[in-house]
Amino acid sequence: MFRNFKQVTMVVFGRGCFNQLEDILSQRRSAPDSGVVFLVDDVFKAGDLYQRLPLHDADQLIWVNVDDEPKTTYVDQLAATVKAQSAQYPQQLPDGVVGIGGGATMDLAKAVALMLTNPGSSTDYQGWDLIKNPAVYHAAVPTLSGTGAEVSRTTVLTGPEKKLGINSDFTVFDQVVLDPEMIAGAPREQRFYTGMDCYIHCIESLTGTYLNSFSQSYGEKALELCREVFLSQGPDQDDKLMMASYFGGMSIAYSQVGVCHAMSYGLSFVLGLHHGIGNCIAFDYLEEFYGPGVREFRRMLDRQEIVLPRNLMADLSEEQIEKMVDVALVLEPLWENALGSDWRREMPRERIRELYLRM
Amino acid sequence: MFRNFKQVTMVVFGRGCFNQLEDILSQRRSAPDSGVVFLVDDVFKAGDLYQRLPLHDADQLIWVNVDDEPKTTYVDQLAATVKAQSAQYPQQLPDGVVGIGGGATMDLAKAVALMLTNPGSSTDYQGWDLIKNPAVYHAAVPTLSGTGAEVSRTTVLTGPEKKLGINSDFTVFDQVVLDPEMIAGAPREQRFYTGMDCYIHCIESLTGTYLNSFSQSYGEKALELCREVFLSQGPDQDDKLMMASYFGGMSIAYSQVGVCHAMSYGLSFVLGLHHGIGNCIAFDYLEEFYGPGVREFRRMLDRQEIVLPRNLMADLSEEQIEKMVDVALVLEPLWENALGSDWRREMPRERIRELYLRM
Repeated sequence: MFRNFKQVTMVVFGRGCFNQLEDILSQRRSAPDSGVVFLVDDVFKAGDLYQRLPLHDADQLIWVNVDDEPKTTYVDQLAATVKAQSAQYPQQLPDGVVGIGGGATMDLAKAVALMLTNPGSSTDYQGWDLIKNPAVYHAAVPTLSGTGAEVSRTTVLTGPEKKLGINSDFTVFDQVVLDPEMIAGAPREQRFYTGMDCYIHCIESLTGTYLNSFSQSYGEKALELCREVFLSQGPDQDDKLMMASYFGGMSIAYSQVGVCHAMSYGLSFVLGLHHGIGNCIAFDYLEEFYGPGVREFRRMLDRQEIVLPRNLMADLSEEQIEKMVDVALVLEPLWENALGSDWRREMPRERIRELYLRM
Repeated sequence: MFRNFKQVTMVVFGRGCFNQLEDILSQRRSAPDSGVVFLVDDVFKAGDLYQRLPLHDADQLIWVNVDDEPKTTYVDQLAATVKAQSAQYPQQLPDGVVGIGGGATMDLAKAVALMLTNPGSSTDYQGWDLIKNPAVYHAAVPTLSGTGAEVSRTTVLTGPEKKLGINSDFTVFDQVVLDPEMIAGAPREQRFYTGMDCYIHCIESLTGTYLNSFSQSYGEKALELCREVFLSQGPDQDDKLMMASYFGGMSIAYSQVGVCHAMSYGLSFVLGLHHGIGNCIAFDYLEEFYGPGVREFRRMLDRQEIVLPRNLMADLSEEQIEKMVDVALVLEPLWENALGSDWRREMPRERIRELYLRM
């Protein structure tokens, strides 16, 4: 069985297309007294984005904080807030949820849109195809590129026990607004770490055992675009990075990420590291799995003058390190993609532990 | 304003995924006494495809003939047949329309699905965004790759006055089933001519004035895949050709085809030539517009041992040649993409006429 892949319904790409958001949302607005929920990364409290938001009277603007990776508790809290506010609307639900920010904010928007129509806690849905009801209409405006969250069928959440996505066709956005001008102002290091999420998942996907020509076509082009952005100078760097992220996300349709992403999930869970930097820290120690990719990554680090944090394990307890190993081992499809069906023999707990201890 | 691009909702890719069609359609079947319409290229009357069709009792199987390019009269006739048959169904409409064939058959499936829910004749809707009502669910199984019909928002029809597509978001398929095994048996020349549709529209799109990074990313990868298929030998040629067609189709989102497609429409209208071979005949005479592309195309011709028909104008009347020029000139966005907003000055009737006379 091959996955029947749900695509984002509507995609608009172009410099300045953020200005079309009012027009796009106007087609979703059901009544003058219903509204749209905007979840916006709170770093944009500074700057002029607020003035550019197409806010109507009944809309809800919620500044979200993504200093930490999205947690299930935060999703549940946001969904409760939106539900309470939505009691004013004719349908008791907003006409849509719009996420404006990087991967974390986009994932929050997906998760909140799902939790408005599905009962219980978001922890109940961490896994594959557990969501029962369609989400409310949800749209994304990426302001960082690399995660592929704009096209993926997951929203990655940290729960009390595990870091795991809500993987579902209902998770996929109804609309993405790809405006390269929106990623132009990102801090240099954040841009790099997020961009490397794309680079690394292309390497993992292209060297994995799940690959087919669909994922390969997207992955190879995404990789090429990453090289143009991070190893050379040229025009349209923001446009290219945005497309790299989109293609990288699409390449996952018939492939999977691998060792680095599994290890990175452990780092995020225990150390609270953001996904992008967690990937970079882990990838640097994975030359035995991804030799040419890791060496090229180091050239990108040099060229972009990025210095990775080191010695992260120094103050960790034995229990914390074991927890990292546990979190990494949950991601079975990632290991299988990287190492084949016999991956457990090649990757005993002890080897994962040793890899972590180097970091 | 940038186009807000409607994507195919569901995509499945993989060798043998045609076998999942039963499962995919089962989710659309609304009642035991309603049915799905299969429009299948009648070349498959021979062979084992018939046995593999997931036909239920109330389904309609219609063998379509695409010896000629799809005509509006044929679409209207097919839609009337399907409507008459569908009177037996609870909703008076089928649960879906599935096109199995090349670009012409896929275009028929799109057009019939649209005409089941929109009144009048298909000629009324040739143009841009004239369709008012959503089509019935429609799916495609390509058996030839290159046209991009599997992802495009058009269905190209020849009417009494013009050859022009029904361009609409409602035209886009709800489902495409991309099984490389389905294109493996195509006749060598047909495979080449259809594949060149993709190659040529990539050249036209990548050298056009409408291009942005979205279309460029798709177009460059499609071009690379065409080269792998038609200029070298390697594994997975069918898989790559199928992806080239998909990417080529996607690249049109923010670009356009150009001089060759405009000229080819004239050839099809007057001579009844199929689109793929019409493109090839025209492209060979367009070195002044697409120099490197035309020279590479000739290397592909040589390598694939294809001999193009020549001297097509010998028996044509003055009136027929003028009609070709008329048909080509209707395609204004194509000329503008190729030559810029001032294209009329560069491309008077006489120059188009002279180009035709060489063919």
